[in-house]
Amino acid sequence: MEKKAKVNASILIIGNEILSGRTQDTNTSTLATWLNSIGVKVEEVRVIPDIEKTIVDTINLLRSTYDYVFTTGGIGPTHDDITAQSVSKAFGIKYEVHKEAFKILENYYKPGEFNDGRQKMAWMPENANLILNPTSGAPGFSVENVYSLPGVPSILKSMLGGLKNNIVGGEPIKSLTISLRTVESEIADSLTTVQNENKDVEIGSYPFFHAGKLGVSIVIRSENQTKINFCKTQILKFVKEKKIEIIDR
Amino acid sequence: MEKKAKVNASILIIGNEILSGRTQDTNTSTLATWLNSIGVKVEEVRVIPDIEKTIVDTINLLRSTYDYVFTTGGIGPTHDDITAQSVSKAFGIKYEVHKEAFKILENYYKPGEFNDGRQKMAWMPENANLILNPTSGAPGFSVENVYSLPGVPSILKSMLGGLKNNIVGGEPIKSLTISLRTVESEIADSLTTVQNENKDVEIGSYPFFHAGKLGVSIVIRSENQTKINFCKTQILKFVKEKKIEIIDR
Repeated sequence: MEKKAKVNASILIIGNEILSGRTQDTNTSTLATWLNSIGVKVEEVRVIPDIEKTIVDTINLLRSTYDYVFTTGGIGPTHDDITAQSVSKAFGIKYEVHKEAFKILENYYKPGEFNDGRQKMAWMPENANLILNPTSGAPGFSVENVYSLPGVPSILKSMLGGLKNNIVGGEPIKSLTISLRTVESEIADSLTTVQNENKDVEIGSYPFFHAGKLGVSIVIRSENQTKINFCKTQILKFVKEKKIEIIDR
Repeated sequence: MEKKAKVNASILIIGNEILSGRTQDTNTSTLATWLNSIGVKVEEVRVIPDIEKTIVDTINLLRSTYDYVFTTGGIGPTHDDITAQSVSKAFGIKYEVHKEAFKILENYYKPGEFNDGRQKMAWMPENANLILNPTSGAPGFSVENVYSLPGVPSILKSMLGGLKNNIVGGEPIKSLTISLRTVESEIADSLTTVQNENKDVEIGSYPFFHAGKLGVSIVIRSENQTKINFCKTQILKFVKEKKIEIIDR
């Protein structure tokens, strides 16, 4: 695949347990951080319920909008795990036993333990590419630009290493954080000026409370380190003029 | 407002810092748990960047799809805080100084400290209803069925109490969790049978690792306690037959 300057992605979190508030999603942060490091910018995240039509429609929309789509959740053995059949429907391809996945699972379990529930995890879209799972056997899979991963955070994390060679990113997105002992309203005007003079750099401002004190982190993000450094210089200039304490830079 | 049997909502998280992985969103879980408790079911969550057109289009789609929309983030004083102007555009109404919000902020800050940056937080959609902020002064606001809250989790939490009377929920969604010392594949078939026989109850199955041991939590959710109890009885029946240890129910 030819390397593009900018590569984007969306993340699709599938699972009623996130929507009910019962489970705190952490996969978004894990995936986004990892994707950033390999030059892929996450531009949208959606969380949707375990409803087939919703999953199918959302996958079809996202895969035509973004370079990559990463789904998490719904690839286990129970009735509410319907990601594999939904991906098959989205692509209009067969949902069937994947021979290689079947072998992996057969070898993973002790003789007699590879029951119907576990065999369900070998059902996938026809000719799907496997994403190996070093933690618990059951592989994830990809079809074209859609990558399906499990919902359990520790298992998902363990699978990213094996996925790296499949994802062709653009220039890695670099970021620089300057933390100040101030409040947002003290720097808002000056920061707006810096942003307006550097429109292709992303400048974010995030208030924080730490150890009982208020502060603001300014985050500068771009593929271009020179542009980041230029913004940094401009920001440190007004910080000095305003006599604001720098906590970290 | 007349009370409906089922009331749904979507959550719109606005902020590059979530998409970059830098910040772990926790507002989804906070809002979803609270909404559930007052009979509002969250059916979709989206995370989008600080881009006006994206915010406007997404708000317009979500507000016509769901009974309520809750936005978080982007209502502070800096250049990347564009939620209020985006909500105004989405509704096609003026973005102007809100007199009541201006007064609240003027009283909140010491004389001489109510600078331009802080005054920006009084700019809102015309005639917006205020959502009071007991933590840090600056109010949130609502227009029709769209409620805009801040991104800082502790401030957001402190504002929910004052919001409760504005949200008319349906029957509260009740849930019951049964935790078992087993793995999903051991119970998948039996659980599918219970789900198929109780189609209007939501049954989820969630594997966990705790204290070095594997387990599965089965979560039964419905507005109807009798239906939950019926499913519970059916599940405990097969659990007993399979001689599975019950950790908690």
